[in-house]
Amino acid sequence: MHVADRLAASIDATGSVACVGLDPRPALVPPPVRDAALARHGDTVAAVAEAFLATNRGILDAVAGRCAVVKPQVACYEAYGSAGWDVLAATVAHARALGIPVIVDGKRNDIGSTAEHYRDAVFGGAPGFSGAAVADGLGGDWVTVNAYLGSDGVEPFLDDAGAHGVFALVRTSNPSSADLQDVVAGERSVAEHVADRVAAWGETRRGTSGLTAVGAVVGATWPEQARALRARMPDTVFLVPGFGAQGGTAVDAVAGRRPGSGAASAAGLVVNSSRELWGAWQRADAPDRWQAAAATALDAMNRALGEALDAGAGADGPA
Amino acid sequence: MHVADRLAASIDATGSVACVGLDPRPALVPPPVRDAALARHGDTVAAVAEAFLATNRGILDAVAGRCAVVKPQVACYEAYGSAGWDVLAATVAHARALGIPVIVDGKRNDIGSTAEHYRDAVFGGAPGFSGAAVADGLGGDWVTVNAYLGSDGVEPFLDDAGAHGVFALVRTSNPSSADLQDVVAGERSVAEHVADRVAAWGETRRGTSGLTAVGAVVGATWPEQARALRARMPDTVFLVPGFGAQGGTAVDAVAGRRPGSGAASAAGLVVNSSRELWGAWQRADAPDRWQAAAATALDAMNRALGEALDAGAGADGPA
Repeated sequence: MHVADRLAASIDATGSVACVGLDPRPALVPPPVRDAALARHGDTVAAVAEAFLATNRGILDAVAGRCAVVKPQVACYEAYGSAGWDVLAATVAHARALGIPVIVDGKRNDIGSTAEHYRDAVFGGAPGFSGAAVADGLGGDWVTVNAYLGSDGVEPFLDDAGAHGVFALVRTSNPSSADLQDVVAGERSVAEHVADRVAAWGETRRGTSGLTAVGAVVGATWPEQARALRARMPDTVFLVPGFGAQGGTAVDAVAGRRPGSGAASAAGLVVNSSRELWGAWQRADAPDRWQAAAATALDAMNRALGEALDAGAGADGPA
Repeated sequence: MHVADRLAASIDATGSVACVGLDPRPALVPPPVRDAALARHGDTVAAVAEAFLATNRGILDAVAGRCAVVKPQVACYEAYGSAGWDVLAATVAHARALGIPVIVDGKRNDIGSTAEHYRDAVFGGAPGFSGAAVADGLGGDWVTVNAYLGSDGVEPFLDDAGAHGVFALVRTSNPSSADLQDVVAGERSVAEHVADRVAAWGETRRGTSGLTAVGAVVGATWPEQARALRARMPDTVFLVPGFGAQGGTAVDAVAGRRPGSGAASAAGLVVNSSRELWGAWQRADAPDRWQAAAATALDAMNRALGEALDAGAGADGPA
């Protein structure tokens, strides 16, 4: 099944466009999990790794059926070396066992021959000495990529069958994103140049949902740009970071939706939240109810996004 | 000691501007190393990991004292999961034990709070539950970064003392680099916009050598652009990929040198070669002399680059 269709099916089955970010940090680990890991390992990489995986599994169990997709942030794992990589792989495996699509957020990029190795790292297939695959990779459905190197750096991640997809950085959520992305070249900003490439790469990689295997990262912090970028990328799935902790509202987050109403998947976007879900226990009465706190926070996010999508559909009129 | 001064000292001590790329691939492992690993582990990740590390250590022993710096390509290791990460860390440790500076080639990039985790992955310092560092990181001196996110994504890798540095992608060596990097915005190409940022970020991060902690990746395949980019980044170290296997000649590779003559380090660049050094045994008479083959290939590269630098210095006149 095409990667965009798998995502669309997940959105429609759950009624959610939420992407649950799995960005573990020691300070956000629920106290009961932290204390158990410290008791066993002291304040070591082993304790951090054990606590990250236990929390991720608990969060995944709590959000399964309530979110469209999950997105581990590779940097948070990589910071702890090979132990962190094992946690990342086990986290992706747990999500897949629960039937949740996974976006590996690594923002990888390099020349073509090197991008192939990054593809293997995420999707599997690194060869042994016989040439046959010996490594499984992380097992993700999608990977985020940085398109600064052009098509050479993006196409190695894609396959003819659409089994896997990418989200290319177009307009990121951070304050200094304007440094380069807003520079205007001809009639278009740099972000718009990338957007046009994203649309072109996706043109021949469309699922039966109409959505393509080449998505775009478009931050919730720039709603006007999101609307303008949608016009350039009509059938591109937007991965929208910046909701919540970074300042984007639910209305901002869905600004880049496809016009019209219909199934939730027809909006063509998923909205990420990380800290406010993974660390939801911080706002709960009882820290040991951290799984319920994550589910409750996600339900609130789903309601807010659902209302914003319904309002947007009304404004645009039916498809 | 400032990271750019450490690199300049290494260039002058070895008389070499060569960067030895450590991009292991199973097909390039010397047959004696491959056969030993296969005998022990069969065709598995364990065999690949053992063979990669043995070859890297042998290559490092052979090139120590003959090259300015080494550059492991993270993708080649990451493709084999946590076992690959352990090989990468052990490779960096071996280089450091030999006194060779290390560029971790990961082209990392993300918003600021996430870039901090990538910094920890490369330079160490990821916290445990107490907030104190528990992880060493890979131990590199430099890391390659992609500046599409602007200063937020670059500055977390830098420190006030200049202990560590970055090489930001400016003009990459691959064919499709023109897709975005050559787009002209105002009077400047996108690559030139990035170059001006690189120069500005480096302005306050200068060592006693005059070189800065913010380097630039400028491919050997675009010598005319390298000359134009040098004018915008007078005190930036250029990391030049694309020499040899990708088609750049020695003269092309040093096109972005700083003007004038003097110590080799004053040229302000290092030139990478990967496959032609790591796989040099393929062109040797006896596969078991793979270390000597790498040293011989490096010596030839050093001679070619030295001649090209001398010729360039003559053309520019004395400093």
